[in-house]
Amino acid sequence: MTTTEAWVATAANQPLTRQTIEFGPLGAEEVEVEVEHCGICHSDLSMLNNEWGMTQYPAVLGHEVVGRIVELGPAAKGLKVGQRVGIGWTASSCMHCRQCMSGDQHLCAHAQGTIVGHRGGFSNRVRAHWAWTIPLPEGIAAEDAGPLFCGGITVFNPLALYAQPIHRVGIVGIGGLGHLGVKFASAYGCEVTAFTSSEGKFDEARQLGAHHVASSRDSQSFARRAGYFDLLIVTVAVPLDWPAIIAALAPRGRLHIVGIVPEPIKVDVFSLLMGQRSVSSSPTGSPTDIAQMLDFAARHRLAPQTEHFPMSRMNEAMEHLAAGKARYRIVLDADF
Amino acid sequence: MTTTEAWVATAANQPLTRQTIEFGPLGAEEVEVEVEHCGICHSDLSMLNNEWGMTQYPAVLGHEVVGRIVELGPAAKGLKVGQRVGIGWTASSCMHCRQCMSGDQHLCAHAQGTIVGHRGGFSNRVRAHWAWTIPLPEGIAAEDAGPLFCGGITVFNPLALYAQPIHRVGIVGIGGLGHLGVKFASAYGCEVTAFTSSEGKFDEARQLGAHHVASSRDSQSFARRAGYFDLLIVTVAVPLDWPAIIAALAPRGRLHIVGIVPEPIKVDVFSLLMGQRSVSSSPTGSPTDIAQMLDFAARHRLAPQTEHFPMSRMNEAMEHLAAGKARYRIVLDADF
Repeated sequence: MTTTEAWVATAANQPLTRQTIEFGPLGAEEVEVEVEHCGICHSDLSMLNNEWGMTQYPAVLGHEVVGRIVELGPAAKGLKVGQRVGIGWTASSCMHCRQCMSGDQHLCAHAQGTIVGHRGGFSNRVRAHWAWTIPLPEGIAAEDAGPLFCGGITVFNPLALYAQPIHRVGIVGIGGLGHLGVKFASAYGCEVTAFTSSEGKFDEARQLGAHHVASSRDSQSFARRAGYFDLLIVTVAVPLDWPAIIAALAPRGRLHIVGIVPEPIKVDVFSLLMGQRSVSSSPTGSPTDIAQMLDFAARHRLAPQTEHFPMSRMNEAMEHLAAGKARYRIVLDADF
Repeated sequence: MTTTEAWVATAANQPLTRQTIEFGPLGAEEVEVEVEHCGICHSDLSMLNNEWGMTQYPAVLGHEVVGRIVELGPAAKGLKVGQRVGIGWTASSCMHCRQCMSGDQHLCAHAQGTIVGHRGGFSNRVRAHWAWTIPLPEGIAAEDAGPLFCGGITVFNPLALYAQPIHRVGIVGIGGLGHLGVKFASAYGCEVTAFTSSEGKFDEARQLGAHHVASSRDSQSFARRAGYFDLLIVTVAVPLDWPAIIAALAPRGRLHIVGIVPEPIKVDVFSLLMGQRSVSSSPTGSPTDIAQMLDFAARHRLAPQTEHFPMSRMNEAMEHLAAGKARYRIVLDADF
């Protein structure tokens, strides 16, 4: 049993309120973490406002958590009290299905989202399964690491799956995910083109590591690069000129979409066929994927670009994000 | 210079007529083949009726050719006069672009289709670049080999690219392409499910090697197999229940479409995302892909199931195909 303080969403489009909440007994395989920092992902905003119809109020949001282990269930493996760890989108998976047993725990049909019917990181304490409580390696600054656990792995995983340093990679949308996509793709050794709707971000995108920058709103940006990209990663959740984007893929190229575009995208089979092209998507990554991403980030001294708010200014931070003003990821520092 | 006889398409929806045609001088890298057999692919019918808007009349169709080399240009490599060879969808490629130089000659932007502004195999003679004139290995019967050069490689290539013998593979549409898809996937060692719109083909699909057979018209066929298939190959060019089909993919599964579906297919990003799934397509394959496919077919004693017509009954054969009566591929035997 743990009594703790948390910022609670009680209804859509309402401010979060600070409340005292109670956890039941710690599960045998669970870990309890004292939250130090928690990033705000755009999906926290979507969940706050029940945009995906799966929010269970009262909800404790926040799924880019960094903190220290304060308690371990008796069956928790490989971790120590006091260790600094992170927790992302997934808080647990069944650990015995075919996906879990083959290392694809993030594809487990019974995976538990950290903020979906489970209490997340806008809190003094958060719990997760030991497998999903990932130790922070040396060389990663705790205060800026949170966003790696959701935004970071979401854009890193397609690179790990599909990219090689000889590839031309495009990152569409330079926000919380996209700015990390540019940093990761550049560190991966790829030639990187950043597509952004905001001309004000052109110079910043170059500083993040992009070799080329273009407008994502102008179909000509893609048309001019017909047949060019080995991998295009779309991080935004808005309709785009999909035919022009697919035409910008090189032979054997792949369009990988990690923004949850609400309307189905229309794919012309002939344009895929002629270039032997693919369209795909993926969610975050497995615990091993996350650990590899952290090692890669540490080795390349790569960190999210963040703005910090104390957690007590939670609602102000949420408004800053909703207004599209975050550059590029907000991290809340716990101050209970 | 060669004077030869050919069956010529003069306008859409008109019978082919036998005519005498002339070839100019043989190109330095070209090969001239005396046609013995030529399969009829559904795309010959589409081209006859200008369904894709790229037919250049008068047209000599036919691109599943088997015959013997009668003349070699002075720069033709690796072939001999008298050798038995096959020619498929592609008659030549530029041989010096990045695609050609990296073994993806079928993705060359300047590839010349055998029946697109070039005279195909419904003729006594056909010409192709030496690289696209593929020797028939021992163990492949010449009279039934033609369909391997277009239909065969079209369904074999996705298996070679993406399938492993541990995979569950679904073949949607059991016609000219699909019946070869079932045979190849079964020989590849996969678990094979055949989806056909015709209940009359259920038993035949099992004889072709399918372990399971289901209706492609009934969305429940796919819904009952949610999360099941590692690879689904769609060989038909009609709209299907795409959401149900994508939901039938296992995590990391791939929907690969080789039928030229005329309307864009609508893909829900969330359904791709949750299962880390892909949608893709491909055209035929490279000369090396074709050679590997032929070796595989020979080793597994695998041949198209064919119906033969003498080429002089060309128009009757085209009507038989158009009526959906072919079981499963028509081969014309040259009788000039």
